[in-house]
Amino acid sequence: MSKLRCHISISADGFVAGPNQSEDNPLGEGGERLHDWIVPLAAWREAHDKQGGKVNESARIVEESRENIGAGLMGRNMFGPIGGGDWGDEQWQGWWGDNPPYHNDVFVVTHHPREPVEMQGGTTYHFVTDGIERALERATESANGQDVMLWGGAQIINQYLAAGLLQELELHIVPVLLGGGARLFDNLGGAEIKLEQVRAVEAPGVTHVKYSVGRG
Amino acid sequence: MSKLRCHISISADGFVAGPNQSEDNPLGEGGERLHDWIVPLAAWREAHDKQGGKVNESARIVEESRENIGAGLMGRNMFGPIGGGDWGDEQWQGWWGDNPPYHNDVFVVTHHPREPVEMQGGTTYHFVTDGIERALERATESANGQDVMLWGGAQIINQYLAAGLLQELELHIVPVLLGGGARLFDNLGGAEIKLEQVRAVEAPGVTHVKYSVGRG
Repeated sequence: MSKLRCHISISADGFVAGPNQSEDNPLGEGGERLHDWIVPLAAWREAHDKQGGKVNESARIVEESRENIGAGLMGRNMFGPIGGGDWGDEQWQGWWGDNPPYHNDVFVVTHHPREPVEMQGGTTYHFVTDGIERALERATESANGQDVMLWGGAQIINQYLAAGLLQELELHIVPVLLGGGARLFDNLGGAEIKLEQVRAVEAPGVTHVKYSVGRG
Repeated sequence: MSKLRCHISISADGFVAGPNQSEDNPLGEGGERLHDWIVPLAAWREAHDKQGGKVNESARIVEESRENIGAGLMGRNMFGPIGGGDWGDEQWQGWWGDNPPYHNDVFVVTHHPREPVEMQGGTTYHFVTDGIERALERATESANGQDVMLWGGAQIINQYLAAGLLQELELHIVPVLLGGGARLFDNLGGAEIKLEQVRAVEAPGVTHVKYSVGRG
């Protein structure tokens, strides 16, 4: 049974990006500190074609997060610089270079239609304009029995949570206070969401807490 | 060296009490779920003069939190039902009965003067009207070399955080979404606060994350 999973780094005060996100500063002010725990890891460096790096308790968390993923979902604000509007000259192909670290179909939820963009290494970006449920249907079909990863950002995760469509959520809780930015668990509209703690793992500079998610 | 410490149960979405706190519902709507992890513990039951109960990974966290505490601090909203105003007939003596589980001096920060109230078992409530810094001075003096525990609620913890006076913060992160209520890490006014993760412990229905707190 294909699951919709999400894992994301979050500050102790609940933000997954800092204030004032921009093309120059996609994670907002201070937001890059959310990734301090993962960037030095060998598991992260390898996925970004770099050598060396650390191995610690976070390594197995990162490796596990990559297992059994057949397709991805993300919001327009994660795919490209904030601002909305149409795709202009369509030159923008995401933040992740010619060979993005996804290696499967990634469905970008947007209000603005665009033809699919095929990248190197198996990643193709598809642009879905008919809502989060349809995007999940298409991603699930593409995943062909494997799970679908919801990459972010906050806004679309909150939408999938509120709709009761997310099944697993792992938070990488980072010892940082951002004081503002993109807040997870916001605007859930009173949806009854039940979390069950599956496991928690202490690692250098981060605590990984995995929840299964259901309706209350 | 006496430290100011705080430990508090917090929902996954960052609230330490639910919405609409009242005398009938001091932790707000859904807020009692924040304590589901601790109430069954033998360590908790013993402190409340009850027998039996569970022993798990949370037990040593609870025991450690009680060690080396010489005095306490709390906000007016934690001591009594929300509403502010003066103390009226002064009949209110806290939520914790004749023999409160503090067993030392507890300094209640309030705008309204009141004579100290001596309870059974060593707890005396003192009412401090000249601000959080003076309250900490008096508590530190009373603690006589031991640490001072900041019991809560959210508002006064945020004030001590913003003032750079808190040295240690342990969060008991509970798999619950409250959707509103008293938010920790709110109204910090852009204070540069540096957290360092000291340890994280997985336990049934809760993850305990301890931070040391400093100025950024």
